[in-house]
Amino acid sequence: MSDQQQNQERALKVVRDRIDQVDRDIQRLLNERARCAQEVAEIKSRFDSQDAIFYRPEREAQVLRRVMARNEGPLPDQEVARLFREIMSVCLALEQPLDVVFLGPEATFTQQAALKHFGHSVRCSSVDSLEAVFRDVESGHANYGVVPIENAADGMISHTLDLFSRFNVSICGEVELRTHQHLLMSSAVSLEQLEVIYAHPFALNQCRTWLDAHCPDIERVAVSSNAEAARRVKDSSGVAAAIGGDIAADLFELEVVQANIEDQPDNTTRYLVIGRQVVGPSGQDKTSILLMVHDRPGVLYELLDPFRKRNISLTRVESRAAPQSDWDMLFYLDFEGHSEEAAVQQVLAELESGSVELKLLGSYPKAVL
Amino acid sequence: MSDQQQNQERALKVVRDRIDQVDRDIQRLLNERARCAQEVAEIKSRFDSQDAIFYRPEREAQVLRRVMARNEGPLPDQEVARLFREIMSVCLALEQPLDVVFLGPEATFTQQAALKHFGHSVRCSSVDSLEAVFRDVESGHANYGVVPIENAADGMISHTLDLFSRFNVSICGEVELRTHQHLLMSSAVSLEQLEVIYAHPFALNQCRTWLDAHCPDIERVAVSSNAEAARRVKDSSGVAAAIGGDIAADLFELEVVQANIEDQPDNTTRYLVIGRQVVGPSGQDKTSILLMVHDRPGVLYELLDPFRKRNISLTRVESRAAPQSDWDMLFYLDFEGHSEEAAVQQVLAELESGSVELKLLGSYPKAVL
Repeated sequence: MSDQQQNQERALKVVRDRIDQVDRDIQRLLNERARCAQEVAEIKSRFDSQDAIFYRPEREAQVLRRVMARNEGPLPDQEVARLFREIMSVCLALEQPLDVVFLGPEATFTQQAALKHFGHSVRCSSVDSLEAVFRDVESGHANYGVVPIENAADGMISHTLDLFSRFNVSICGEVELRTHQHLLMSSAVSLEQLEVIYAHPFALNQCRTWLDAHCPDIERVAVSSNAEAARRVKDSSGVAAAIGGDIAADLFELEVVQANIEDQPDNTTRYLVIGRQVVGPSGQDKTSILLMVHDRPGVLYELLDPFRKRNISLTRVESRAAPQSDWDMLFYLDFEGHSEEAAVQQVLAELESGSVELKLLGSYPKAVL
Repeated sequence: MSDQQQNQERALKVVRDRIDQVDRDIQRLLNERARCAQEVAEIKSRFDSQDAIFYRPEREAQVLRRVMARNEGPLPDQEVARLFREIMSVCLALEQPLDVVFLGPEATFTQQAALKHFGHSVRCSSVDSLEAVFRDVESGHANYGVVPIENAADGMISHTLDLFSRFNVSICGEVELRTHQHLLMSSAVSLEQLEVIYAHPFALNQCRTWLDAHCPDIERVAVSSNAEAARRVKDSSGVAAAIGGDIAADLFELEVVQANIEDQPDNTTRYLVIGRQVVGPSGQDKTSILLMVHDRPGVLYELLDPFRKRNISLTRVESRAAPQSDWDMLFYLDFEGHSEEAAVQQVLAELESGSVELKLLGSYPKAVL
């Protein structure tokens, strides 16, 4: 070994010994944190022997926000927060292993959202319909469910919305996930040879600008899912393409002929976490409500007035016809604030006083990561 | 708020304040660890400006083993080690983001193996053949590759073995992953109505006992992958079933009619990590070699003698005909020990002295998690 190598080895040993000491300290603290979590569970069970709830979305959101706010690096804020997400997940599993359900077969994205929110120490399982997610959560078969609610390009996912009026579940959190769409083919032929592009209607919509610019004359066929689109391309004789994400490309062994063809490069899908629990304020919260009304001119304007008066930001408004109920219209509203805050309570009281039925879907921490 | 509730809140606040202090300490230490990792990188670059290697499998294995050995709980050993796996992944990504390739479309399992080994801070991408994994690693297009090598029920995966004789890559690590097989159908009909079961030949083999006991007369059709089997069931009119894992069930929206039908409940698949780097000893290592020989009676017996003499455990022996080379036979051997250890060096020297060509595939840490 040369002198230089010996010097290097010596210098490395000094730093590595320090890393070993740091690791020992981290491990001691991780176990101390787990002991604290056990104590919290013990206190809760003592006072609340039946229905003690160990998962506190508001508390976890606060922890993650503090982690990001005080972070001085060199680790990036997002990465440290992700580590703390996993640390809390492991500590919680020690007290109460959580069962989380989500919808297949676009599974892989929703599962990604579930793991992003709960960390990897939960038991995740998929069911075959959105309705089954709501049913499993309402019946207590699962602790929580994760459902897609809003896509940057397409707006609210109406089927999820409708289920909120039929099931008694409450919203406990939200998750935001960035996704990309690619043009996928079984082998890279030139675009001129393409005869058809398969995709979910959302995906066709999300990529309209690129499609209009690069393949305006190629037939676009809407199918039930990205997976179904990829499957058809796999079975085709090479003149078909699909729009889909990395996961579809991987699973069906398709080539990414053109990556990131979505119109809005920041194509975020929003998911909601549903449960049976009322979540306390975290300091930065959102509230979601359903309003059922009889249609008449100016009804939405009237409904929004209480928000305007109190300077409360609406983050989303969505209206739906409600033909199969006693009401004509259904409004879904997201706004900033928590139902325990005075201003929000005033708004809710004012809304209910009119000829309106109000269903509070839940107050929950804004997505942190 | 009742007295009891106030007492509970007070007690909770004490513990939560302690958790907050613990979290602050953990975060400080995580960033200190990252700074140490930066220092290690800086030292390496200073002495070794061209080809400094920042990922050290032997060192990571040692850290994880120490973590598990000294762990006193309450967190389970495996879970603390998983957290440290992620911590090292984040620290390494700060210095050198790693590109890891694996084979689709059974992707999802191999990807799981890749993430289990490298943590979630690597860039994973799939390619469409095992050969492409070897090519990308040999050419330097990717830093590392993950390939399946051995399935508890079926033994070595021969295609992977053959590629080791064609490409110049070295083995840097091994990963073990438990998997389960289920009987999947598009809707739960009774087994009597079943006409055909599709599955990868490995899966048919793994579930032979259950199949023979419960559906001895139903046709079994071998297809190219579990995903393909699931796809065929999805397209069938309800009289077909597939064998596959959770991921196939999720993705194709199939029902798990019977879970865990594999003969050996501990159905572990072993993966190898391939790279271009010589890995130093970690203290608990394995070595893999390829031996090319001319066939003659007793040749394997002679080859194994050097191991027996030095009391070295062989963990795997696999023979293959080698018709397209100058040699008749090819032996793949895994054994305990590292090529830098004296006993192993003696064995390797003794083997090479005969009419045998030896290719050292690599020495690497035994799987920790």
